[in-house]
Amino acid sequence: MKVPEPLLEFLAIPSVSTDPARKEDVRRAGLWLEERLQALGFRTELQETPLHPILYAERLVDEKAPTVLVYGHYDVQPPDPLELWDTPPFSPTVREGRLYARGASDDKGQLFAHLLAAEGAPVNLKFLVEGEEEVGSPHLLPFVRANRERLRADLVLISDGAMVAPHTPTLTYGLRGLCYLEVRLQGARRDLHSGAFGGVAPNPIQALGWLLARLKDERTGRVLIPGFYEKVRPVPEEEKALWPEPHEEALKRELGVEVLPGEEGYSVLERLWARPTLDPNGVWGGYQGEGSKTVIPAEAGMKLSMRLVPDQDPEEVAGLAEAYLREVSPPGYRLEVRRLHGGKPFLTDPFSPPMRLMARALEEVWGRPPVYAREGGTIPVVAELKEVLSAPVVLLGLGLPDDNLHAPNEKLDLINLERGVAAIRRFYELLAAPSGR
Amino acid sequence: MKVPEPLLEFLAIPSVSTDPARKEDVRRAGLWLEERLQALGFRTELQETPLHPILYAERLVDEKAPTVLVYGHYDVQPPDPLELWDTPPFSPTVREGRLYARGASDDKGQLFAHLLAAEGAPVNLKFLVEGEEEVGSPHLLPFVRANRERLRADLVLISDGAMVAPHTPTLTYGLRGLCYLEVRLQGARRDLHSGAFGGVAPNPIQALGWLLARLKDERTGRVLIPGFYEKVRPVPEEEKALWPEPHEEALKRELGVEVLPGEEGYSVLERLWARPTLDPNGVWGGYQGEGSKTVIPAEAGMKLSMRLVPDQDPEEVAGLAEAYLREVSPPGYRLEVRRLHGGKPFLTDPFSPPMRLMARALEEVWGRPPVYAREGGTIPVVAELKEVLSAPVVLLGLGLPDDNLHAPNEKLDLINLERGVAAIRRFYELLAAPSGR
Repeated sequence: MKVPEPLLEFLAIPSVSTDPARKEDVRRAGLWLEERLQALGFRTELQETPLHPILYAERLVDEKAPTVLVYGHYDVQPPDPLELWDTPPFSPTVREGRLYARGASDDKGQLFAHLLAAEGAPVNLKFLVEGEEEVGSPHLLPFVRANRERLRADLVLISDGAMVAPHTPTLTYGLRGLCYLEVRLQGARRDLHSGAFGGVAPNPIQALGWLLARLKDERTGRVLIPGFYEKVRPVPEEEKALWPEPHEEALKRELGVEVLPGEEGYSVLERLWARPTLDPNGVWGGYQGEGSKTVIPAEAGMKLSMRLVPDQDPEEVAGLAEAYLREVSPPGYRLEVRRLHGGKPFLTDPFSPPMRLMARALEEVWGRPPVYAREGGTIPVVAELKEVLSAPVVLLGLGLPDDNLHAPNEKLDLINLERGVAAIRRFYELLAAPSGR
Repeated sequence: MKVPEPLLEFLAIPSVSTDPARKEDVRRAGLWLEERLQALGFRTELQETPLHPILYAERLVDEKAPTVLVYGHYDVQPPDPLELWDTPPFSPTVREGRLYARGASDDKGQLFAHLLAAEGAPVNLKFLVEGEEEVGSPHLLPFVRANRERLRADLVLISDGAMVAPHTPTLTYGLRGLCYLEVRLQGARRDLHSGAFGGVAPNPIQALGWLLARLKDERTGRVLIPGFYEKVRPVPEEEKALWPEPHEEALKRELGVEVLPGEEGYSVLERLWARPTLDPNGVWGGYQGEGSKTVIPAEAGMKLSMRLVPDQDPEEVAGLAEAYLREVSPPGYRLEVRRLHGGKPFLTDPFSPPMRLMARALEEVWGRPPVYAREGGTIPVVAELKEVLSAPVVLLGLGLPDDNLHAPNEKLDLINLERGVAAIRRFYELLAAPSGR
């Protein structure tokens, strides 16, 4: 496949949403997209937010035809470290059938497949595209809730993920949720000399260690917060039968480890897709420089996140975690817990009517039936769109696990772009056919 | 007491040994001191080191008189944060009988007392003064070992500490030792996305937590390293009877805490002076910035130090700690332990002949007998001087606990300088008298 010229243009815009210096570039990417959609006959609206605009576009072809809401994002991750890129991140380059650029897979390239597939599509199309996905979508959910009527659709279609392996069309029917906390412990009122006060001074680093040991059992890998697993929905055997073979040895090689630690009694795939986790994501306190400093710090802290699965709720889990932390925090420390971020888990019927149609389209294009997968990560907007719009969601990932998302040399395999466009077009045809309605 | 002009000069030299930009100032302080000692009739030698010079000086008045080796240091801590000083750190200022300046108490002011007391002293005097105490004395111990004969003395006299309270002359007969380690844990070969890999990825922050919980018992405050307490010498009841009353409530107020956590079954003073401790002094890993980042870091680390008491040995304890860390480090992590720093504990007979003489001198000057105290901190050179020179050590602290060492507004109470000089002079007289020999 020859790369369409406009995609190269789109990828060349450095729309890094986290970087205040790139604010105009992010806007430019949104405007570029608006123009393209207008050229395709869409009525568009760029909704300003305090940060980056949300683009809404719709093209209603037939009031009897089904309506599809396509979600995507036009912002990208920062490209650092630049020196590790083989070609510059915003100079899209094709090598051996792969398109290299920041955003090639996440998510400009995948979003572009939907622009191509929109040409002449026999369904009503609505596009909801944000420029803040990489900063946690702070303004999208309020927009969705406020525009529920306008966004109404028969289904939501999203390509912002990956196939499980090359040549393996994949339908993702589950995502984990997220509950992200910041935990701080304060001991004495000021940093202390460890010689003068060691033996009577509270040490918040030591206390964080005790907390961590009480949060997760070292032997079983189980999270020890009371009630944490209560709402976890077990995975039916028939669902597990859908899952691909796990490649444990390949995973160990990829991570460079000899063991894959995790919750006792569950397979690697179940631990990744259908079991909740707890992981500290950062820790700090005291002296971090070269050599030694004999300090007992006044304060230490950590970032702590939990991946959630149905039917766990981020707010409820945050409450359980906070109550437990307060209960087990040793005496003599002031504990502060801040809730930073949350996202609901998502699970849908892999055999809903639109999923069945998409499976058929994928099989026709790829010559093999799709694999059904969950993902371990979180896209908070997915569960929200499903809930607020009461519509089924189809997650069609066109990326691959080795696409280097959020890393140097991000790429998209062009064959997946080509086949993705074909599959989406075929999906729209099936959907528009009387039997598809 | 009027502050001697030369002391103001000495304190005005910003001899910050940690600051490469101050290297010439440190040297200048050493040269200043050399000149003063020459003016007092000392033969001097400035011994160059790769960092800051060591000053050795001697004045032998009578081969039959006892010989005293005085140790001190002419370097000072950095003055930051400057904005918290009421008067500039290197513009010595007297307010209400206190001399404010960086180094006023630690250790230029106390060292200056020995210069004043040296005038006409009837004993042979040797001065060993370094410019690297605040950077861990990297070159002093090799110098002492290489110059054992030259440094030979009947006793070692050091003023680099504090009285336990105002108007309370104090003889310090014990110091804790130090064993300082850096511990790093590596999990996967690279940082991982906590969604994509949470559930199978090793998390070195979590593993550090488990390690910390295995190092110190949360309930009893006991260090759990096997053999750690084996060589700890119990404190005889008659020694405890010497100790001052602990001011637990005042200590709690000073630290801003409601409890003084520590090893179960020991008094506050025993925990501070005569029991070993373990404290993490720093910890790092993963994301430490604002907001959330969903990373499972490849690596995390901590600084970990233990204060030691007789007869624990820093090298031996480092070995015990490292062996235990290797034993309890969870599978799937690469553990690295580096030994950063060590110092032997020091304990001497509070009633040795020179201590008895100094006690008499202190009582004559202050009008009350001295208090006998240990200190929780470490001065590595003290145990070394005692061992290498086989000489008794007298630690006469002229500072006070509220002198703000290593902090803004460091000061020295002038009455302690004045009385200190008088006491040292009287000590020399007693020492030189036939009954003192």
